[in-house]
Amino acid sequence: MIARPQLPVLPDLLVEEQVRHALLEDLGRAGDITTQAVIARERTATASLRAREPGVLAGMAFARAAFRLIDPAIRFEARVEDGAALSPGEEVALLSGPAQGLLSAERVALNYLMHLSGVASTTARFAREIAHTTARITCTRKTMPGLRAAEKYAVRLGGGSSHRFGLDDAILIKDNHVAVAGGVRPAIRAARAYAGHLLRIEVEVDTLEQCEEALLEGPDVILLDNMKPALLSVAVALNRKHSGLGIDDYPKDRRRIQLEASGNVSLETVRDIAETGVDYISTSKITMAAPTLDLGLDIAIL
Amino acid sequence: MIARPQLPVLPDLLVEEQVRHALLEDLGRAGDITTQAVIARERTATASLRAREPGVLAGMAFARAAFRLIDPAIRFEARVEDGAALSPGEEVALLSGPAQGLLSAERVALNYLMHLSGVASTTARFAREIAHTTARITCTRKTMPGLRAAEKYAVRLGGGSSHRFGLDDAILIKDNHVAVAGGVRPAIRAARAYAGHLLRIEVEVDTLEQCEEALLEGPDVILLDNMKPALLSVAVALNRKHSGLGIDDYPKDRRRIQLEASGNVSLETVRDIAETGVDYISTSKITMAAPTLDLGLDIAIL
Amino acid sequence: MIARPQLPVLPDLLVEEQVRHALLEDLGRAGDITTQAVIARERTATASLRAREPGVLAGMAFARAAFRLIDPAIRFEARVEDGAALSPGEEVALLSGPAQGLLSAERVALNYLMHLSGVASTTARFAREIAHTTARITCTRKTMPGLRAAEKYAVRLGGGSSHRFGLDDAILIKDNHVAVAGGVRPAIRAARAYAGHLLRIEVEVDTLEQCEEALLEGPDVILLDNMKPALLSVAVALNRKHSGLGIDDYPKDRRRIQLEASGNVSLETVRDIAETGVDYISTSKITMAAPTLDLGLDIAIL
Amino acid sequence: MIARPQLPVLPDLLVEEQVRHALLEDLGRAGDITTQAVIARERTATASLRAREPGVLAGMAFARAAFRLIDPAIRFEARVEDGAALSPGEEVALLSGPAQGLLSAERVALNYLMHLSGVASTTARFAREIAHTTARITCTRKTMPGLRAAEKYAVRLGGGSSHRFGLDDAILIKDNHVAVAGGVRPAIRAARAYAGHLLRIEVEVDTLEQCEEALLEGPDVILLDNMKPALLSVAVALNRKHSGLGIDDYPKDRRRIQLEASGNVSLETVRDIAETGVDYISTSKITMAAPTLDLGLDIAIL
Amino acid sequence: MIARPQLPVLPDLLVEEQVRHALLEDLGRAGDITTQAVIARERTATASLRAREPGVLAGMAFARAAFRLIDPAIRFEARVEDGAALSPGEEVALLSGPAQGLLSAERVALNYLMHLSGVASTTARFAREIAHTTARITCTRKTMPGLRAAEKYAVRLGGGSSHRFGLDDAILIKDNHVAVAGGVRPAIRAARAYAGHLLRIEVEVDTLEQCEEALLEGPDVILLDNMKPALLSVAVALNRKHSGLGIDDYPKDRRRIQLEASGNVSLETVRDIAETGVDYISTSKITMAAPTLDLGLDIAIL
Amino acid sequence: MIARPQLPVLPDLLVEEQVRHALLEDLGRAGDITTQAVIARERTATASLRAREPGVLAGMAFARAAFRLIDPAIRFEARVEDGAALSPGEEVALLSGPAQGLLSAERVALNYLMHLSGVASTTARFAREIAHTTARITCTRKTMPGLRAAEKYAVRLGGGSSHRFGLDDAILIKDNHVAVAGGVRPAIRAARAYAGHLLRIEVEVDTLEQCEEALLEGPDVILLDNMKPALLSVAVALNRKHSGLGIDDYPKDRRRIQLEASGNVSLETVRDIAETGVDYISTSKITMAAPTLDLGLDIAIL
Repeated sequence: MIARPQLPVLPDLLVEEQVRHALLEDLGRAGDITTQAVIARERTATASLRAREPGVLAGMAFARAAFRLIDPAIRFEARVEDGAALSPGEEVALLSGPAQGLLSAERVALNYLMHLSGVASTTARFAREIAHTTARITCTRKTMPGLRAAEKYAVRLGGGSSHRFGLDDAILIKDNHVAVAGGVRPAIRAARAYAGHLLRIEVEVDTLEQCEEALLEGPDVILLDNMKPALLSVAVALNRKHSGLGIDDYPKDRRRIQLEASGNVSLETVRDIAETGVDYISTSKITMAAPTLDLGLDIAIL
Repeated sequence: MIARPQLPVLPDLLVEEQVRHALLEDLGRAGDITTQAVIARERTATASLRAREPGVLAGMAFARAAFRLIDPAIRFEARVEDGAALSPGEEVALLSGPAQGLLSAERVALNYLMHLSGVASTTARFAREIAHTTARITCTRKTMPGLRAAEKYAVRLGGGSSHRFGLDDAILIKDNHVAVAGGVRPAIRAARAYAGHLLRIEVEVDTLEQCEEALLEGPDVILLDNMKPALLSVAVALNRKHSGLGIDDYPKDRRRIQLEASGNVSLETVRDIAETGVDYISTSKITMAAPTLDLGLDIAIL
Repeated sequence: MIARPQLPVLPDLLVEEQVRHALLEDLGRAGDITTQAVIARERTATASLRAREPGVLAGMAFARAAFRLIDPAIRFEARVEDGAALSPGEEVALLSGPAQGLLSAERVALNYLMHLSGVASTTARFAREIAHTTARITCTRKTMPGLRAAEKYAVRLGGGSSHRFGLDDAILIKDNHVAVAGGVRPAIRAARAYAGHLLRIEVEVDTLEQCEEALLEGPDVILLDNMKPALLSVAVALNRKHSGLGIDDYPKDRRRIQLEASGNVSLETVRDIAETGVDYISTSKITMAAPTLDLGLDIAIL
Repeated sequence: MIARPQLPVLPDLLVEEQVRHALLEDLGRAGDITTQAVIARERTATASLRAREPGVLAGMAFARAAFRLIDPAIRFEARVEDGAALSPGEEVALLSGPAQGLLSAERVALNYLMHLSGVASTTARFAREIAHTTARITCTRKTMPGLRAAEKYAVRLGGGSSHRFGLDDAILIKDNHVAVAGGVRPAIRAARAYAGHLLRIEVEVDTLEQCEEALLEGPDVILLDNMKPALLSVAVALNRKHSGLGIDDYPKDRRRIQLEASGNVSLETVRDIAETGVDYISTSKITMAAPTLDLGLDIAIL
Repeated sequence: MIARPQLPVLPDLLVEEQVRHALLEDLGRAGDITTQAVIARERTATASLRAREPGVLAGMAFARAAFRLIDPAIRFEARVEDGAALSPGEEVALLSGPAQGLLSAERVALNYLMHLSGVASTTARFAREIAHTTARITCTRKTMPGLRAAEKYAVRLGGGSSHRFGLDDAILIKDNHVAVAGGVRPAIRAARAYAGHLLRIEVEVDTLEQCEEALLEGPDVILLDNMKPALLSVAVALNRKHSGLGIDDYPKDRRRIQLEASGNVSLETVRDIAETGVDYISTSKITMAAPTLDLGLDIAIL
Repeated sequence: MIARPQLPVLPDLLVEEQVRHALLEDLGRAGDITTQAVIARERTATASLRAREPGVLAGMAFARAAFRLIDPAIRFEARVEDGAALSPGEEVALLSGPAQGLLSAERVALNYLMHLSGVASTTARFAREIAHTTARITCTRKTMPGLRAAEKYAVRLGGGSSHRFGLDDAILIKDNHVAVAGGVRPAIRAARAYAGHLLRIEVEVDTLEQCEEALLEGPDVILLDNMKPALLSVAVALNRKHSGLGIDDYPKDRRRIQLEASGNVSLETVRDIAETGVDYISTSKITMAAPTLDLGLDIAIL
């Protein structure tokens, strides 16, 4: 039996495909000419991959793949795994093997680690702010082109929850859709008529009136966009009432409609938003806009 | 406002990518050498795409792309659109343009049309059998490698409902997962702890005991595998009771747990299964194993 | 020295390319989330791949590649090889290794095996019907987009003979080509003037008059389209006469023109067609339209 | 004759390749199902792309390609071009065409625009700080995997200067290379012996001693890593002396060795660094770690 | 009716795929930076593509695609078509459009034209030497990696005949195969048992004894490797005798075994080889080893 | 410390990508059908890769990859490495393993080796002619589409020097650019304003006047196009004067402007050109137009 939620895994087939592409981008047409010019082919080296600031580690499979694809003779021993809380200076992995390969793969490996650990660490900061509530932080489709699956994976490592991956794996009815459909209810009905039984339906509402309309129709999730905490609290109460639930059993019943808040989410505002009782808080601050986490590779050529 | 469910659309970007691949498979290294040898480049032709047996049309975007990619000078005028009920001999499209291109693209266009229309038509046959019930026919992941999105699109055109597209867009807990997790409830709990709020969770059960266990945990869908109609009826009643719903409001409430039946589904058995009150009936008979629908291209070279 | 015809082989480079594509189609952006959620990463399992109905096995390289690409730690021990006649329940392969990988690769592996074994088994049924004649069953270009080489490979395992793979590896002059060229003979001459010495030329004829015209010109193969057995017999006799061969040496001389029959070919009609003395009988029933063969994977997680 | 430096251009062939990839990532297997469900295919819309904060625009070719690839019927009229200084609310482009396409391409177009305009705007902020000096801000290889060419293009639009694109288009001898080569001079010599006449050679030095050693060997550029402004000033003076140049003609002679400073570069420190007289200041703050610039698409469906 | 053999055509789908790849190779990550730096975007130009030496033109579709893919606004007017005999200075095409695009696509366009026209022209020189005989010059699989279809296409334009395109479109039994099979006859039998009715079989023989053995078994083609003209004449006579043909009808009967000579083929020897009466003479001198034909683009920027 | 210039290396990731493509080109849809038909799968063989004429070896990584990708069970033992001077008959590598794989990969491996060794050997012939001077032979962008990096690599193995790899890794201002820019100096200034500090700038001049103009502006390299040796000598003297260098220190100072000569370069003329004192002599004779070097594989099947 599984005690805690399992950590997410990105299939190697997907990771390798991406890393290969990133390496080709860096190698260009002639490869690492500096290293070829200066380092003899038979030299070996050891290298220590270390965190340079505190944070949450993400992207080890990408780093491992970068070194393996450049030279399978490189040994990569992880000291900790994705999801680990890092302290400054902590060794993340120990590498050894041909010096040329270590130098050539270094940058691509670090670029993945620094961005994905940045995503995980930023997510963790948001998650800590709201840990005393039942709300969870979640991401959006505002992601770096080509890196969506990787960023969403890192969000989860940081304690966030995943949103839909793209346009096709859940229905999210936005304001424009509502406007064209002639209201929240006809929009949800059109979506339901279209969707199969394994697709969730979420609808964005901007006002309490729209929220009540949505509650009557029963989507899976209601996205409360750009509402102030006071309004969010009202929406939470409406949902509770609509579900026929008391205050105590409210957060426990997973089959009621879920509420997601978005808009104006920051480390300063997230706690107030979470304390309203919403289930999810979504923000692009934890993906595309997340600052990088500093990691470095100290190489000792033998 | 949308009156009836909209017809599904496959993005051109996806269709073109696939058709290009199929054309390259057929063209090989030298292209259509017979046509090059025998038909002068300046000859033009008209061609009539016709159904040779009754059925439901699917795959027009694939056919159109095949001719366009071979020669953009070919004109393709659809007479009917995907989803249309075809009678034998009915003209589906009228084409005109360079004779070489028409001959070279013909087979790939027809291969898509014949398979996808076969899928849609077979689905429609199942759908007609159960049209008097609230059940809908749905597909599985038993699809031709490389053709999953196309087949699922065709299932919808035939009046079926879509299932998950792959391993990543919904959670489907199967018998092996249940066994390892130590039971239906812990499996659902592990899934719920793992999944975000936009992923549905379905669990497969083989017995009424497992079904009851599942009902207590509240997944989105329960898959009743290989149960005879009598047993299915009991499961339906259990679900109704569990939801606190009467017979009348039962099929209308979309937020209760959905029931899907699978196993031993055929045109002979599907009616009995549907009449038990299950919501979905899944079968691979409508995708990978669907017979082709006969269509032909009558070419008149000018 | 080679006693019997060797079994065909599909190069691993081609197989792996295709399976990788099919796995990516199934994995989507996040991989097998159910298994990630429910099965701990360190669990191992054994699995038995078994036939569930009698037939001819095809596609083992595809299945092996699916498991290897998902996790190279999975061990795949074939019990029988492609081309083997399977009895219901027979074990085809024994697998062991990480449980996550076994579950994630299962469907893609089975989809290939079920379709390709279906092709091989259907071909074998046709082949058995005509085993007492000198005719051989052969396929066409009516194949699932993307799966042509795989299906043609499976046809051969079922005892069928391969036709051209695409538009470029043999010349097949069809009715439209004949019409434009102004007759069977000018069409063949144009083809011969165009083709190199390593390309075969086949011409489709609809009448005995066309057949005689073709015999005078001497293509490699004549395709007798939609002729009834009685007419086919006349065509066979014409060919014999034209070749200056007696009844006894007729089927043995491989340098005479070969005759291929097509149209209205089914398990009911194929025997009569074969007994006319034609050399090849082509049908799309054994490729695109072949029913699947049922195989399953019984997994025991340790 | 060209008066000012021309603006950089990214070839459409490269842009389209990348945008196609990003769209496929977002479309997944079924495309924009929400829009398909709710918006009728024949609806058209207009949309106004606007800046929501001040900054420098970058990525218009990516946005244009996103809409064109989704639906060539969409009209995209740029109001301003890449490199333009944007004021909040300023209209960047006016779009019109099929509503489905506008909604489906929106996110990918904005993701490119927001990140690349973020890069350009951050670069511009650094450039403004040092506009009174002869120094220029430049980037590194710390870029988002897959987005290097796009980010370097945006750096230039922001007034920065481009660094090498990858491992193969210039030689950059780092501390590890120096250590293995046995010193700065042998490292430069090995590089020179290896490189052709169209490759520049840069060497990283950490101390003034290394800097003097480098000056004697004459690389194209010396990278002064992690030196405080006082030390940088000394290095600048050494270079001037070594070149036999007076204070006045110093910054004008382009054939002397160029000096690049790196390490501890921020909006707070960059002015002091620039005033030392170095030629280039490199930082990853303007690429991978640049905050996004907010832009939005206001859609009016007709 | 087709009077002369039609000229071969390479499908645009194949040409474009290859040219795109070649352009990306040349553009690298930033495109044509010289042109971007020096030529204003709005400048237009005309350009004249001219032959600089006599020869046979090949590769116009590649050149056209190079300019179109770089900028669809470029107009490309062919003055002559592939297969034309060129005189020095002759204008091959006239181009006009954006100056940047003309300059950026020039080199890739010329690289294709120069190599493929070189192949066609060299083939034509060989063909002229043997024009008084019934022999035809043909190529081998010794081709530039990635350019096989293009080179074989150019061979045909030069008046040569095509050989197989790869390992899969004809059977060519070489000395090693014969050795393993235990002789020429068992090798041919194994091949025949394996091949379908649309595959030709050729066998390589080194001696007259092997040739006689092959004649008895009746392959489609016999490759006489490294035989002197005197020996080749004997082989031709043996084939005539074996076919029961007189001297007069010999070269006309297309259904007898074809003879191909290879080894030590040059412009000096090819005439003697052809006059022995063999049907085909194969050489790698006309593909991989063909000298380039000089063509140039004279650009006038407006 | 590095004593002599290191040999260049092509990253395996790049080599494998290309060889895979070339193998797929040769394998087509069914692979090596001759070998499948005639050679039993369990047969093994040894093979000796040998030079058949003297020259410089290049392409071993391509050959090794061809065999490994076809069958990882093949053992490839190099006897000499790239860059080695070969004598006729010399064994280059010894291979052993499955006979089918050795036969199937042979041609692709040899095609790379023969072309790339041809490039290296031709370069070496030019290099020997000018070994007594300070000039070096270098290549251009006239390369086989798809093979640029490989050809440039081979040029270096032959003792040549590398030029830019494409349009983006150095600036080369040609006559058309000069004409549009309004002269050599404005063209160089536009280039300098555009380029970053890690890009070299070369300018083509046709006359001494242009050369003097260029010397005043100070690009990195001046390309003296189509000048006779007498004129080249004058240009060399001008450069020396401009640099303030005496005859003795002239060739040693690496920071002066480099001179490259092009046009009418052949084995007959190259010595005279080199003796003028230019630094580089560029020619397409050593890449696209280089004759192949003959190598062969002698296979002994066990």
